[in-house]
Amino acid sequence: MKSVALVVQKYGGSSVENAERVKRVAERVVATRKRGDDVVVVVSAMGDTTDELLDLAAQVSPVPEPRELDMLLTAGERISMALLAMAINNLGFQARSFTGSQAGMITTAAHGVARIIDVTPGRIRSSLDEGFITIVAGFQGVSQDTKDITTLGRGGSDTTAVALAAALEADVCEIYSDVDGVFTADPRIVPNAQKLDAITFEEMLEMAASGAKILHLRAVEYARRYGLPLHVRSSYSTKTGTMVSGYMEELPVEQALISGVAHDRSEAKITVTSVPDKPGAAASIFQVIADAEIDIDMIVQNVSTAGNGHTDISFTLPKEAGPKATEALKKHQTSIGFEKLIYDENIGKISLIGAGMRSHPGVTANFCQALADAGVNIEIISTSEIRISVVCRDTDLDSAVRAVHDKFELGGHEEAVVYAGTGR
Amino acid sequence: MKSVALVVQKYGGSSVENAERVKRVAERVVATRKRGDDVVVVVSAMGDTTDELLDLAAQVSPVPEPRELDMLLTAGERISMALLAMAINNLGFQARSFTGSQAGMITTAAHGVARIIDVTPGRIRSSLDEGFITIVAGFQGVSQDTKDITTLGRGGSDTTAVALAAALEADVCEIYSDVDGVFTADPRIVPNAQKLDAITFEEMLEMAASGAKILHLRAVEYARRYGLPLHVRSSYSTKTGTMVSGYMEELPVEQALISGVAHDRSEAKITVTSVPDKPGAAASIFQVIADAEIDIDMIVQNVSTAGNGHTDISFTLPKEAGPKATEALKKHQTSIGFEKLIYDENIGKISLIGAGMRSHPGVTANFCQALADAGVNIEIISTSEIRISVVCRDTDLDSAVRAVHDKFELGGHEEAVVYAGTGR
Repeated sequence: MKSVALVVQKYGGSSVENAERVKRVAERVVATRKRGDDVVVVVSAMGDTTDELLDLAAQVSPVPEPRELDMLLTAGERISMALLAMAINNLGFQARSFTGSQAGMITTAAHGVARIIDVTPGRIRSSLDEGFITIVAGFQGVSQDTKDITTLGRGGSDTTAVALAAALEADVCEIYSDVDGVFTADPRIVPNAQKLDAITFEEMLEMAASGAKILHLRAVEYARRYGLPLHVRSSYSTKTGTMVSGYMEELPVEQALISGVAHDRSEAKITVTSVPDKPGAAASIFQVIADAEIDIDMIVQNVSTAGNGHTDISFTLPKEAGPKATEALKKHQTSIGFEKLIYDENIGKISLIGAGMRSHPGVTANFCQALADAGVNIEIISTSEIRISVVCRDTDLDSAVRAVHDKFELGGHEEAVVYAGTGR
Repeated sequence: MKSVALVVQKYGGSSVENAERVKRVAERVVATRKRGDDVVVVVSAMGDTTDELLDLAAQVSPVPEPRELDMLLTAGERISMALLAMAINNLGFQARSFTGSQAGMITTAAHGVARIIDVTPGRIRSSLDEGFITIVAGFQGVSQDTKDITTLGRGGSDTTAVALAAALEADVCEIYSDVDGVFTADPRIVPNAQKLDAITFEEMLEMAASGAKILHLRAVEYARRYGLPLHVRSSYSTKTGTMVSGYMEELPVEQALISGVAHDRSEAKITVTSVPDKPGAAASIFQVIADAEIDIDMIVQNVSTAGNGHTDISFTLPKEAGPKATEALKKHQTSIGFEKLIYDENIGKISLIGAGMRSHPGVTANFCQALADAGVNIEIISTSEIRISVVCRDTDLDSAVRAVHDKFELGGHEEAVVYAGTGR
């Protein structure tokens, strides 16, 4: 006897970009319901809605108040979720939509980048108990302290889906987009990239942190913490996608040593030259960056070509944080004591990820050899137990990805479907 | 010493139809604040937003679920109020926006036509106490029983403003639109129609019920119940508009005997012929109509030309209720016992309103004479203490309005600004 499962499904902005697509999603949701499962659906705003709202905001204010920007943007999911509920009702099934606030997504008060503090899904549970297909607005919540409406920032809808699935003790959280699953590399760059059947949370975390846009880091972290299996799949087909779950032990034994190659074009590199080579010099730089609330990624400190007890320090950071970081550092140039600041946006990052690599020391050597054979110069290198990342020229990035993918024999015999970005 | 006044301002959809207009409204709100008053602003959705959302709904479902339609439509005010708050912030003043639910607009659960049960404006009061210009979404509330989001239906934003002003014990509620105030007639029909400086609630109620679209009936009823003065004025000028307030005694002595001429093209007429002229016949007809939840306006019962103990009954009702009413009546044709049902959409209604007319019996005679001189045939006539209404051919309506306006010498010496419709 099969007991009723609870499935949480998340559909991104491109899956609901117009009325036609909303109806398709409705059919898909109804198909799941017909199997006998309870369904909670988390939706993003339709296609370009968020950009259109941001454009309106820019027309009335150059620097919109974050509280009001959240109030504005949350109109987006309100529209898509109500339409989806109507479309489901129209297929003869009962559906009800709920805002993040109604669904009990309790967050910090940090507008635009709120973090989930608690999930109190009482109304969602009642709605499920009453037999409704229950739709929840992704990306949004309500502040615990101020009771103001908040948004979760990038990857917010994925995070909503995972957090809600964890709170409801769902059996699985399905993340739908226009891609078939997680690939060994971006198929737009590597045509024979293969879809992975399974991947661990740890590898997925490294993939996400290394620029694979299919799942947001926060959502993966959340799923890992609660041991909630994620199923990354396409809203265009019924094919099984990629299961992201707990441990290697649970995964098929034929799981590849290496999961895939990720790349990232969103970072810039800052180099500060001739920093006094003494204790505290690096710390003073990174304190300035931290005070400006900027996250940095890779760091390298090398002996200055100038010598004389001075050193150069390079680090990578999101491009959009570049102006703020350079400004902050220049303000403290005297106290830090550096000579020049070089800001470089023309970099790319390539990463090789695989839980298997921790016990295979030859991986790093092969990785570097592949890049050398392709004529790609390594500017910064950094490694974790299950990842190697390298910064190179952005113009070299595509050939670097292909070279590494080939070197580790990750390709299949078929061309993969073409990849596209996912919504918020 | 002037104490701080609390002003509630309501801006309709055309006043905030694009970013430029939102900025204009922001300037206007800030000007009020600079005078030292506390300000609460109630806004409608921007221009065509509601129609666009309805169009989307129609694309996913022919008969959208009312609960979900309310969820969808309330995105409209969310967008306009957040933009207005941003625009005010951008002028250096602090503003915060609140949804109907957050503002404590507690309603019945009748989606699309919810009625306000209670207003609990705790958050609005706190926001005012903290010095914020406080913006509230018009048209929307939250159901007391289900906690679902509701909309108030036609005239909803006016009603929100008035209900909030009453609950906050505001000094005045200003209703802004693109008209200078309440006029003696529609200036599009009567070019020398004059703006009234003042009008009583009772007269305004009759004007609203008779088709003057400047203020919705529900809002006037609410204001009258709480004795809350309304100031109807233009968002395009700083001119004083029309004060709607308690009693004639409070109004200037030079106040005209007659307030104005209203007209209405939104009604249809149903005539059922040869109804048995016996007790209960009319009642059975109106019971059928009431069971179909249709409001009727004017009723006339006249001796049938056929004689023989039968009579004809005519009544007017909103055009959109026409099909439903004819269907309901035909279903009960046998039990009611009428012969024919005649449905007529080509009617117009003209009304003369004036608190002064109750003590001037000559008014009705003059009114009918004016119509006769203009060659307008009277089909139905109905009177209250402060109103006379007549149904005529819709093609005669404009000349009827002009004739009556002239007869009672309501015109001024200047041409009035051109009238336009107001938002929800």
